[in-house]
Formats: sequence, structure tokens, C-alpha cells
Amino acid sequence: MTRAAARHLRSITELGADGIIELLELTDHMVEVNRRPIPKVPALRGRTVVSLFYEDSTRTRLSFETAAKRLSADTMSFSVGTSSVKKGESLRDTVETIEAMGIDAVVVRHASAGVPWQLSQWIDAAVVNAGDGWHEHPTQALLDCYTIRTELGRPFEDLHVAIVGDVKHSRVARSDVLALRALGARVTLVAPPTLLPPSLEGWDVEVSHDLDDVVATVDVAYVLRMQLERQEQALVPTLREYATCFGLTPARAARLPGHALIMHPGPMNRGVEIAPEVADLPRAVITKQVANGVAVRMAVLFWLLGSEPTPSTSGGDE
Amino acid sequence: MTRAAARHLRSITELGADGIIELLELTDHMVEVNRRPIPKVPALRGRTVVSLFYEDSTRTRLSFETAAKRLSADTMSFSVGTSSVKKGESLRDTVETIEAMGIDAVVVRHASAGVPWQLSQWIDAAVVNAGDGWHEHPTQALLDCYTIRTELGRPFEDLHVAIVGDVKHSRVARSDVLALRALGARVTLVAPPTLLPPSLEGWDVEVSHDLDDVVATVDVAYVLRMQLERQEQALVPTLREYATCFGLTPARAARLPGHALIMHPGPMNRGVEIAPEVADLPRAVITKQVANGVAVRMAVLFWLLGSEPTPSTSGGDE
Amino acid sequence: MTRAAARHLRSITELGADGIIELLELTDHMVEVNRRPIPKVPALRGRTVVSLFYEDSTRTRLSFETAAKRLSADTMSFSVGTSSVKKGESLRDTVETIEAMGIDAVVVRHASAGVPWQLSQWIDAAVVNAGDGWHEHPTQALLDCYTIRTELGRPFEDLHVAIVGDVKHSRVARSDVLALRALGARVTLVAPPTLLPPSLEGWDVEVSHDLDDVVATVDVAYVLRMQLERQEQALVPTLREYATCFGLTPARAARLPGHALIMHPGPMNRGVEIAPEVADLPRAVITKQVANGVAVRMAVLFWLLGSEPTPSTSGGDE
Repeated sequence: MTRAAARHLRSITELGADGIIELLELTDHMVEVNRRPIPKVPALRGRTVVSLFYEDSTRTRLSFETAAKRLSADTMSFSVGTSSVKKGESLRDTVETIEAMGIDAVVVRHASAGVPWQLSQWIDAAVVNAGDGWHEHPTQALLDCYTIRTELGRPFEDLHVAIVGDVKHSRVARSDVLALRALGARVTLVAPPTLLPPSLEGWDVEVSHDLDDVVATVDVAYVLRMQLERQEQALVPTLREYATCFGLTPARAARLPGHALIMHPGPMNRGVEIAPEVADLPRAVITKQVANGVAVRMAVLFWLLGSEPTPSTSGGDE
Repeated sequence: MTRAAARHLRSITELGADGIIELLELTDHMVEVNRRPIPKVPALRGRTVVSLFYEDSTRTRLSFETAAKRLSADTMSFSVGTSSVKKGESLRDTVETIEAMGIDAVVVRHASAGVPWQLSQWIDAAVVNAGDGWHEHPTQALLDCYTIRTELGRPFEDLHVAIVGDVKHSRVARSDVLALRALGARVTLVAPPTLLPPSLEGWDVEVSHDLDDVVATVDVAYVLRMQLERQEQALVPTLREYATCFGLTPARAARLPGHALIMHPGPMNRGVEIAPEVADLPRAVITKQVANGVAVRMAVLFWLLGSEPTPSTSGGDE
Repeated sequence: MTRAAARHLRSITELGADGIIELLELTDHMVEVNRRPIPKVPALRGRTVVSLFYEDSTRTRLSFETAAKRLSADTMSFSVGTSSVKKGESLRDTVETIEAMGIDAVVVRHASAGVPWQLSQWIDAAVVNAGDGWHEHPTQALLDCYTIRTELGRPFEDLHVAIVGDVKHSRVARSDVLALRALGARVTLVAPPTLLPPSLEGWDVEVSHDLDDVVATVDVAYVLRMQLERQEQALVPTLREYATCFGLTPARAARLPGHALIMHPGPMNRGVEIAPEVADLPRAVITKQVANGVAVRMAVLFWLLGSEPTPSTSGGDE
């Protein structure tokens, strides 16, 4: 999908390799903006971005709002609990009402897969998926790809990425697999069978149940958060046993190739899926992921709402 | 009341017909601002508008905040639950504290009728009533009048408006009656006796208990939300029976005159006071009401806080 | 500490008398800014200030956010309850994540003493203590000193300040004592023994258990809030008895010297530590404290983040 046609970002599949690359290149500009003494451009002045979060989130909401403000957009925040949702209003009436106020983009997080698609049928504003159920989280995948590209500087076709842990409940895993495979990387899912989706048809990945088997061969060890709050039943015997078998321990981290990255989408359960000291290694680029997240979301918002080819042409400092 | 004298908007009765007309004309300017590529004017730059909501509300709070931001005012949001109110601070100390920080207007919603009047005795900032108990909601009435005027384009003196449903618990009904009667429209309340106020003295309206009697004669069918959460006891036998007797069903909507509007203040209980398919008819101008709400609130804030006659003279784009 | 060296404001002890005086003088500039028709300067444009509140607060959060906006900084608000904290993320991971988004200052309130120091070890952003447990609340002390200086216009060396009430649970008392003593004022703590800290070693103050003994000799009667919500056990027999023995009653207020000020950090428990009619006396400068709070916080944020000597040289109106 080219930018001219882009109206929403609901799934990585809407982008294809070309769209992903285009966004990563636009992110380079945004990183440059963020390094300026006054990291702000007027690219989206007068535009309004609403974050519509039906699930709690610190990092994603703040990241999008920071991104919007750096582009000089106005932001508004709408979270369940201070809303008409309590009064029984339908999701459709809620978003149609918000749109009628004249907003330009809705950044939505919802516990149900598919909500961003529903929204985009109901409203004309751009819809950005900030996480729908266990389904997708495309801006996370973009920031992960951007971080990998920046930190390793090698073609994705030459990379092997292990995605380790609770794949079953992870929208991050789904979006990352789609993006990495689109870019040509080799991807191996590493998890106990109980933490893999019932079917992997169409995933186009390798699977391993043994992290020790895989760890020496990867360029990136991408450790997923144990979604303790989404597991209706115990899918692992104990967290301690999980940490022993599938956690990224210091011993396993030591067996990674010298250049390999350690990544995590946050928030971390230190001591469960990742050992505390591993999370603090220089090669653990977790805060770089967060920093890149702001730039990637600036790129996405500009890509969807901006009217000029790149922000650098839209006037430098306001 | 003329603009020079205006310090607050607590009730429609403070405006009179002239004040209402003045605000509707100012709203025309704001609608024009909202159609610009960058819908923003510097009219209220450096002013601070605080929303002080003691009751949950999506649409009203976002609408006022959007309005304030389009006039370049700073906004702050204060809702019960993250406040000193929990610590037992009095309402008076709370608002005096907020005012001492240097704010220019307070937009207040509170479960008790009369709170905006109390506030205006305590503070110098402009007070805008965003709903006080079952009493008034003047900006809703203004946006309703603006929508009727814009969509029908006829003198209010020639119009017949039916306000249908839970009048008893509706601040919207009270403010709409006051505004429509001030402008000369004929108003009929349509509700079962249990959903009318105990006394209608001073309301200056007609009353009907039979929607089918009225529906063919109206220019506007204004359907109220069933305030299920405000009814301490069952005032209707069942919601299903209510929907049958007083809901705006497809059959009733079909008997409306060809030009008549269907309006609702939102959020809707689809299937209770209004049938889902009726809410989606082209003549149901519910999202237009929401859109006009932003412009009306821009007009109100500018009218109370602006120092120049119209925003178009205050400099166009920032 | 001089401004060039200032990176954080965690405690009054970091400032010394010179630092306090420097900030009070900078506050004079900010008061002047706040009196302008458009009380806004571009001093911190492009900077982002995050308020990270692990305890509820109205006045402090709004005051800091107002201050930041008047300096044209972007603000973001992060409160427990809509955050990853619920998901068990550590404080450290939370603040490192927030910082990675590119923020410049964190204003933190937390129930545990020392949290601002921890934060400043983990992140490079400026840390401002907005209250840590029972420990310190330095910007409150600065606004209190500024109010005393402005209202009384006498050297601090000539002043006697009584701090009355629940000293034990009061971070305000600690910071006020440190600031007032650094500036040379005489300070007397007035409280029943149960509401004093177990040890007063190093406090460098006088102590009295009898308010009537002290009241006629003070220039400032600083009444503390009874921290009812922080007392695990009853430290006073009844609130009524407390009000009788240690409350600032009309009779006691009448015995204050003619020029003396009545101060309170808010929110007040009217009828407990202060009689309602005393709180409304002209010499009760409680709302002036609030107003000065915004200017003091503008001074602190500018002092920590600004790159020019005074805001008046940074361009006047934006």
C-alpha cells in the first residue's frame, strides 16, 4: 500500500514490505526531528488525534500522545471508566460521536480482535490499531523492525529472529511475525506447546520448544511478556519452572552471538521471562525500542494525516 | 443579556431571545472556522479553561475541550476520583483553589441542581453549566436550536417541536423548552405521566400522553434518553412496553412530515427510546448535533472570554 | 547550589539559602508573566514535563501543569490506575520507559520517602519532588516562603513562624522548617506530643504543646492539615477535642499580632485544624499561596530546564 492510498493502520498486512520500508524511512526523519533542541514541527497543526483506550496502557498511550504533540497535533484522551460506555452506549455510537466533533485520527486499543476494522467502517477518520485483543499491534512491530534495522544495520534477509514465550496471547508476536517475514527475516517461535496458538497455519515460521537449541543461532532474541492477566487457566506449571525452561537467563544470554540483540515489548516481568541482569545488559535495547516508538508513531500519524511528502519540508521549527 | 454583560452561562434564562440569537450567529463564524484546513484561531490564547466534572461524561467534556483548543485556550481536566474531593475538601475550597491558579473559565457538571450559581458567587472566573442535576444544560439547548435553524431554515415561530420521553429526569428537556419557547416555537411534551415533572407550572408547553397523536404534526421529534441510571424506582412497567408506547419506532418515524427532523441528545439507548433503524435515517441529525456542539461551545467560550467582537477579526490562522 | 549545577529539586537542602533566594527572585519574574494579558512565554517550548502521581492530588498536579503550560512546555499526566503499574511493572522500568520517550522533567509524588532520589539515579531527566511520603515537599516550602516574603516584606531573620498541628505526618512541615531555618526565621512547632515526630534531632526548632502560649508572638500561624487518612491509629482523642486544643479558633486568631498571616497548605479540614470563619479572614492568605504556587513552579521548571538567565529575555509573548 502506498501512502496516497493509506487511510488506516489496522494490520501489518495492509502495508506489505514496501509500506513498511517507507514508514521506516519516514521514521529516520522523525528521529532527526527528535534530536533537535526543540523537537517539534508544525506538520499536523490543527489536527486532532484521539486515543480511545478500552484497556489500560501506559507506554502506548503516552507514546502516541507524545508523537502527536511533537507534530503539533491536538490530542484527546478517552478511556473507559470516564465515559458513556458505562451508560451502555454502543461502541459505534461512541466513535461516531467522537468523530462528529471533528477529529482526524483515532488510536484504538480494545480487548476484542477486529475492533479497528469495525471502526473504520463507521467513521472517516484514520484508525490506528494500538492493540486489538490477541490479534495485532502494528506500530509495535514497526518500532521493533526499526530498532533491529538501526542497531544491526544488516539486510533483514540475513537475520534470524527468535520470538520467545507466550506467543498465544501476544498481539506483538503476530504483528512482529508478519512484519519480519514480509521483510524477509527468518523467524523461529520458541515456546512450550501450551503457549502457542492452536494452529500456526499461515504463520510461515519455524517452531521450537527448546530455547537452548536456538539461542546460539539468532541475531535477535525477542522475549515476550508472560500475559499473566490474560491466562484463564494455568498454562505453565509454575512461573519458576517457566523461568527456568523458557526465561532468558544469564547463561542463555551468554550463548547469544556477540552482535545479537535482546528485545522485549514491555512491561517486563523481571525474573519471569527475562532475568533482571539480562534486561540491563547493553545489548538489551528495550529503552531504545521505547524511544523509537515515539518516532515510529510520528511517522505513522504523519503518513496518515500529513499532506506533504516529508516533515522536513513543512517548515522546520514552528 | 448582551455580551458585554455576560459573565456566566448557567441557564438559558440568562440569555433571552436576543442572547440566544447572538450566540447562534456567533456559532456561524465558528462553523466557518471549523471548515478551514487548519481549524484553529488564536482568539483565546493564554486563557485557561478547566472542566470540573463531578459526573461522568464523554461527549460534553470532549466537546468543550475541543472547542477550547480550537480557540487556542489551554485546557485542564479535573474529575472526581483523582482529586481532593476524596479527601473531604468542600466544593467551595476546591473551586477557589482552582481559580487561584489563574484560570479563566470553569465548565462544571454536577449531580446537584444549582451548583453553577454557587460557583459563580465564589469565584470570578466565568462559569459554564455543563449540566446540573435534573435542572439545566444550556449549551445542549443552544446546539439543538442551532441544528434546527440550520437544518430547517424556517422561523422558530413556525415550528412545532415534540420533546418525547423521560422529561422528568432531563436537564436537556428543561433547557430546550426554555430556549425554544424564547425563540417562539410551539413545544409539546410527550410522555407518560410518571415521566413528567410533578408540576409543569411555568413551562409554557403543551402536553400529550400519546405520541401517535402528535407525530404527524411536528417539525422536530426530539427523543430524550431514558435516564435509566437516574430512576430510583421503576417509572415504566418494562422497557419493552416503553419502547412500544413511547419509542420512536419505524412506523411512527414514517408518519413524520417529509421535512421533519429526528433529534436525540445522546448517548442513545437504541431499541428503547429510539429504534436502531430510525437512529440511522438521513433525517436523524444526531451526529450533526454533536458537530454543532463543538461550534456552539466555541461561541460560548469566545462570548464569555474573548475581547474582540468576532473571531474572524482576531487574526485568522494562528 | 547554583542554577548551573541544578539538575533536580528533591529537597530544600539541595538549595541552601542562596538557591532559595534565587528561586524567589525568579518567581517575581513569573508573577509578572502571570499578570500579562496573555500569561504565556515560549521559554520551554518543545520541552515535555510528565507528572507521575502515585497519590491523588488536585492542587499540586494542576499547579505544575498550569506552570508548565504557561512556559509553553508540553505536559503529560500519568497516574496510577491507568498504568502498567497495575500489571506489576517496577517503578524503575516505568520511569525508564517514560524517559525513553524523550521527556525533560518528571514531577513525582509517591507514598514512599526517597522515591525522587531513586528516580534521579535511574534517569537523566530533571526530577522534581511533589511530595514523597512524610518526607519533603520542596515546592510547597518555596511558595510558602514566597508568600511570606511578599505579604510581610520583612527580613526572614526578624520573623517567628509557628507551624501548628500534625507535624508527624507532614512533608510540608519538614520542607517548611528546612527553608525557613535556612533563611534565618525562628520556627516553633506547636502540636501534641503524639503528632510530633519521634525524634526532632537536627530540626533546629522550638517546640510547644500549647498554642495559646505561642499565638500572640508569631508573624505567621501556619496551620497544617490533619492527615486523617495517614493515621493508622487514633493519635488524638477526638477531632472535636483536637479542634478545641490545637485548632485555630476565632478566639486564637484574634490574639495574633495585627500584621500576622494565617497560612494552610490545603486542602483544609474546616472545623478541625482551622475554624471556617478564620479561614475566610483577610489575613488568611491561603488562596494567595495557591496563586504563588503556580509562579514558584514556573520558576522551578525554568530553573531546571531553561537555557537562558530569565524568561523576560526569552522573547516576551510567543
